Amino acid sequence: MKTLAVLVAPGMLADGATVDLADAERHHLKVRRVEGEAEVLVFDGVGNVARGIVNSRGDGVAVGVVQWVPRPAETVLAVGAGDKDRFLVLAERCTELGVTRLVPLLTERSQAVDSRFRDVALDKARRRAREACKQSENAWATVVAESCPLAEVSVRHPGLRWLLAHVGGNVCPAVARGDAVGWIIGPEGGLAADELTIAVEMLRATPVALGPAVLRFDTAAVAAAAITQDRRAATKG
Amino acid sequence: MKTLAVLVAPGMLADGATVDLADAERHHLKVRRVEGEAEVLVFDGVGNVARGIVNSRGDGVAVGVVQWVPRPAETVLAVGAGDKDRFLVLAERCTELGVTRLVPLLTERSQAVDSRFRDVALDKARRRAREACKQSENAWATVVAESCPLAEVSVRHPGLRWLLAHVGGNVCPAVARGDAVGWIIGPEGGLAADELTIAVEMLRATPVALGPAVLRFDTAAVAAAAITQDRRAATKG
Repeated sequence: MKTLAVLVAPGMLADGATVDLADAERHHLKVRRVEGEAEVLVFDGVGNVARGIVNSRGDGVAVGVVQWVPRPAETVLAVGAGDKDRFLVLAERCTELGVTRLVPLLTERSQAVDSRFRDVALDKARRRAREACKQSENAWATVVAESCPLAEVSVRHPGLRWLLAHVGGNVCPAVARGDAVGWIIGPEGGLAADELTIAVEMLRATPVALGPAVLRFDTAAVAAAAITQDRRAATKG
Repeated sequence: MKTLAVLVAPGMLADGATVDLADAERHHLKVRRVEGEAEVLVFDGVGNVARGIVNSRGDGVAVGVVQWVPRPAETVLAVGAGDKDRFLVLAERCTELGVTRLVPLLTERSQAVDSRFRDVALDKARRRAREACKQSENAWATVVAESCPLAEVSVRHPGLRWLLAHVGGNVCPAVARGDAVGWIIGPEGGLAADELTIAVEMLRATPVALGPAVLRFDTAAVAAAAITQDRRAATKG
């Protein structure tokens, strides 16, 4: 079975350090019935990974040699911020699938959703994304950005080649390993006509079909992330 | 906005027929505040689609000309049957992503999950998969098969080229439009060593990495389905 993993705050991991564990992590170890001096994997969510030994009180971990995992190529998902609970699950999925940034997108139709994700839940989304490092053993947690109107997304998140998830769009283009890619994923009900114009004309986004059917926003986001990783793996260079 | 959709039982759709709506569909129309004679899309989940007019009582629909959507190429997901709620959501996602069959896989580590999906919930899973036709506008619902031990999956579901979701596996191979493909997706914690042997030796499954990280079973299933569709769209012939 997998080695148990713990998460520590960014900036705490150094060769031979002893790091205090936050309450949530202590609780996690207790639930998993870790007693005595257990060997664990230690993640900080910003590229550092180490093996460590939890002390017998379960409140600190003695860290061995810290490995540095290089920052992956940028994969940004700007996703129409629909239902909050589904958006929080999406934050976890993003870390599993190597998404570097998740941007809650303010759109006409997401604003109509009562249960929508709002920035008051940002801390929760960030915690969920960081927590997913443990299960996925990804050294890099997805960064959840502040929510952003579609018209500002290319200014706040520059330097990306934009793709637009769109029924009837093209086949996904090749993505080289180092390419910085950003996806626009509409909310439930899709982008409005003037938003589609912004995406295509202002962001110069390429419309890409994620299959022939209409996807829910979180299915579309997971599909886009998976296809991006697959395209990167399949492309030479 | 999208046209409202309703679902009817297989075998009911014929040109010019009037079809009774089941209680769940009547309720759905009431919740959506459909009154008077509303135009709807009618799906039966087995390839038939028509435009229709709901009658003023909201309990029947007068169907126009029925279109037949050809059966898509087989994409089978045999998925370690983990947490029931997540498995039910996966059944919906499968219809969105053009999966033709979802097989709950009995594996060593899924059997240890208390909250696991069991065959008593098959009706519910089938309903969720069929319901997803409406939202996704996919004419074909995913068929949810009875659960199956890994060693029997190739006998009960023959004629497929098997791929195994596996960390450290190869890049996904090309999938031609007509290729019948089956994925083996392990449960939380992965397949046990002897199960991996069955997958590789008995099913001759090709190990495929869905990215570098460890995915939860439902993330892996959605990723596999999305990549299969993408590969089919990208392959000529």
